[in-house]
Amino acid sequence: MAKMPALVTLTTDFGLSDEYVGTMKGVLISRAPEIRIVDLTHAIPPFDVVAAAYMLAASYRYFPKGSIHVVVVDPGVGGPRDVVLLLVDGHLFLAPDNGLLTLLLKKKDLKAFKITNNELFLPEASQTFHGRDIFAPLAAHLSKGAEPDTVGEPISVSALQKINLPEARIDCQEGRIRGSIISIDHFGNATTNICRDMLAELGGSFDPSSCLLTVKGFSIRGLNKSYFEGVPRRPLMLFNSRNYLEVAVNLGCAAKMLNLLIGDCVVFYLN
Amino acid sequence: MAKMPALVTLTTDFGLSDEYVGTMKGVLISRAPEIRIVDLTHAIPPFDVVAAAYMLAASYRYFPKGSIHVVVVDPGVGGPRDVVLLLVDGHLFLAPDNGLLTLLLKKKDLKAFKITNNELFLPEASQTFHGRDIFAPLAAHLSKGAEPDTVGEPISVSALQKINLPEARIDCQEGRIRGSIISIDHFGNATTNICRDMLAELGGSFDPSSCLLTVKGFSIRGLNKSYFEGVPRRPLMLFNSRNYLEVAVNLGCAAKMLNLLIGDCVVFYLN
Amino acid sequence: MAKMPALVTLTTDFGLSDEYVGTMKGVLISRAPEIRIVDLTHAIPPFDVVAAAYMLAASYRYFPKGSIHVVVVDPGVGGPRDVVLLLVDGHLFLAPDNGLLTLLLKKKDLKAFKITNNELFLPEASQTFHGRDIFAPLAAHLSKGAEPDTVGEPISVSALQKINLPEARIDCQEGRIRGSIISIDHFGNATTNICRDMLAELGGSFDPSSCLLTVKGFSIRGLNKSYFEGVPRRPLMLFNSRNYLEVAVNLGCAAKMLNLLIGDCVVFYLN
Repeated sequence: MAKMPALVTLTTDFGLSDEYVGTMKGVLISRAPEIRIVDLTHAIPPFDVVAAAYMLAASYRYFPKGSIHVVVVDPGVGGPRDVVLLLVDGHLFLAPDNGLLTLLLKKKDLKAFKITNNELFLPEASQTFHGRDIFAPLAAHLSKGAEPDTVGEPISVSALQKINLPEARIDCQEGRIRGSIISIDHFGNATTNICRDMLAELGGSFDPSSCLLTVKGFSIRGLNKSYFEGVPRRPLMLFNSRNYLEVAVNLGCAAKMLNLLIGDCVVFYLN
Repeated sequence: MAKMPALVTLTTDFGLSDEYVGTMKGVLISRAPEIRIVDLTHAIPPFDVVAAAYMLAASYRYFPKGSIHVVVVDPGVGGPRDVVLLLVDGHLFLAPDNGLLTLLLKKKDLKAFKITNNELFLPEASQTFHGRDIFAPLAAHLSKGAEPDTVGEPISVSALQKINLPEARIDCQEGRIRGSIISIDHFGNATTNICRDMLAELGGSFDPSSCLLTVKGFSIRGLNKSYFEGVPRRPLMLFNSRNYLEVAVNLGCAAKMLNLLIGDCVVFYLN
Repeated sequence: MAKMPALVTLTTDFGLSDEYVGTMKGVLISRAPEIRIVDLTHAIPPFDVVAAAYMLAASYRYFPKGSIHVVVVDPGVGGPRDVVLLLVDGHLFLAPDNGLLTLLLKKKDLKAFKITNNELFLPEASQTFHGRDIFAPLAAHLSKGAEPDTVGEPISVSALQKINLPEARIDCQEGRIRGSIISIDHFGNATTNICRDMLAELGGSFDPSSCLLTVKGFSIRGLNKSYFEGVPRRPLMLFNSRNYLEVAVNLGCAAKMLNLLIGDCVVFYLN
């Protein structure tokens, strides 16, 4: 039986109003007619490498092993930055080497390649749209089962660009964690950089009803398990589907109600 | 020959800016690699069960019998509401039991199931994102031809939650129908809850050119068959592609021109 | 081996908030279960035939030969305008005959057909939504390899409607080209109607660093090859991925910074 072609996911800042995403898919299908394509999102804010890095790290594990994740948030397109392939946990990531893959570099058993085989590119590849002219042909090629070393040469994982991402700081003595808001979703729910493991580090067992979070002068008492548990139209906190602490409002929009912005500080207190 | 896997449609209030829809598709494809997925819309206003109920009722019949329609507008996620499966006219609907399926309950030969087989769910399913952790695995399972009773236990259709939807009232003596606007589309066309059958009830034969509709202090004379028939940039009424009476503007935006909002009253007069 | 069904691309002004695109796909799949569908865009501004004409011309060649491009920007739906099929360079285009195909008519070896076989339409086709009721069934039919003459009768290509599109004018004596902005993308980059060939016509060899573009009172000196080459947050010009001269801003939004609108005049000077 013929092997199924790999799945390709697309994450870009291209939006959906132009032909950019469509033509990438045209190239993918022209080169690999049976390829499967899933849009992760095309609504990354323009040039926002940080937002794309978070989205990617939160998402890839829900796709089958062998998936090829194409990430094109690429303010340096046409410049000297490399295009790279990273193998993580059975997944393949194709991205410009600008820090998009930073959060994946914490994983083990990584392999990285620098793309050098430009015979795979579209003829007369532009210097303004590598998504269509370089990334799509590479992904099509890999989707057919080609070995990673057919697209380029191995490089050291430590050579990959990294971006500084704000990290939450745990203060065990004071029983608190200082963090910040790293993304705000369509509902206005605000994800912080405080993950579940940090609470374990702070205090093995604790009373969820006595936790406190302060953000923008507001205090939220108690850690909920679901939005539904919160008082309607009042702020709450919970660990969200990414397993990070989130500020939300049951049946409302936390970002609007609390005037939240990415980068805002939050402080979590065990009690 | 292998049976084709069922089609899955997705209707949510998730938007397209986060990873939510993408990860649902990742789970669907991980569990059912050959599945076909069509987005109905992800732009239902947050928590708007009524809007989703209308969209669903207007759409499902254009998909092949056997399609699985996954509808996740779910303000009660993580709370005590059930997840249900409804069989309608050869179509399968997976939804939280919060009234989303209300308009389908008028149909005949319905079968309903309450989801109880949590072995199908993702391991450690979250209490905040059942679309990814519960609905997607259930739909993947059903797409492969599994019998409905493998996902849960039969329940009485009358036990399903219903929402109150505004109904148009026919006054045969006065020759009029009082209705209201139930949705406004991308073009600004406003669908009312007055359907074609109601006109037949009001008067067997009538002169389309002498009908009158009043809305927000405006009067629209004459029932058109197409937008094109209307005077450019002037309000008109017609039966739309959902077979409901619609207020529109040829080459314009009725919602803006007439300041229309969902819930606005309309009165239709035969003459 | 069974022939793969043709690819269908969709370009509309329907937006993604209603069921319109979803139900078109439902009809396509109902009639041609193995069909492949790619969204080119559904964000053409309502009724904007010109914008759709440009997008189509810039995109189709990235899809495989044999693709069926369905374009529904159709302010005359339900009126006397025809639906037509155009064969261009191995691609098929289905569109209302309202000028959408204007830019393709410069190509050679065209064949055009007027749709007359209404047995292919959905039963009781509406007069308001031909995308679902007429275009989708036609595309499904053609995707299965049906001959063009099974959907209608041949017509003269010269009989197709054309729209007037602004053309750039080359003044060799003065060494300049007067053009205008024809589209603005998601990033705020503004495409003009000045293509690369026109520069060759103006002067065989020239110094890219001494070119000048004036637009809205601003002067941009030098022709870049990539966004990256430009000074961050300053206007630049380059030939974009459509091979047209574009006004852009490295890491910024040219449309906002220069207050650009479609139709704005630009003048390009060799030096």
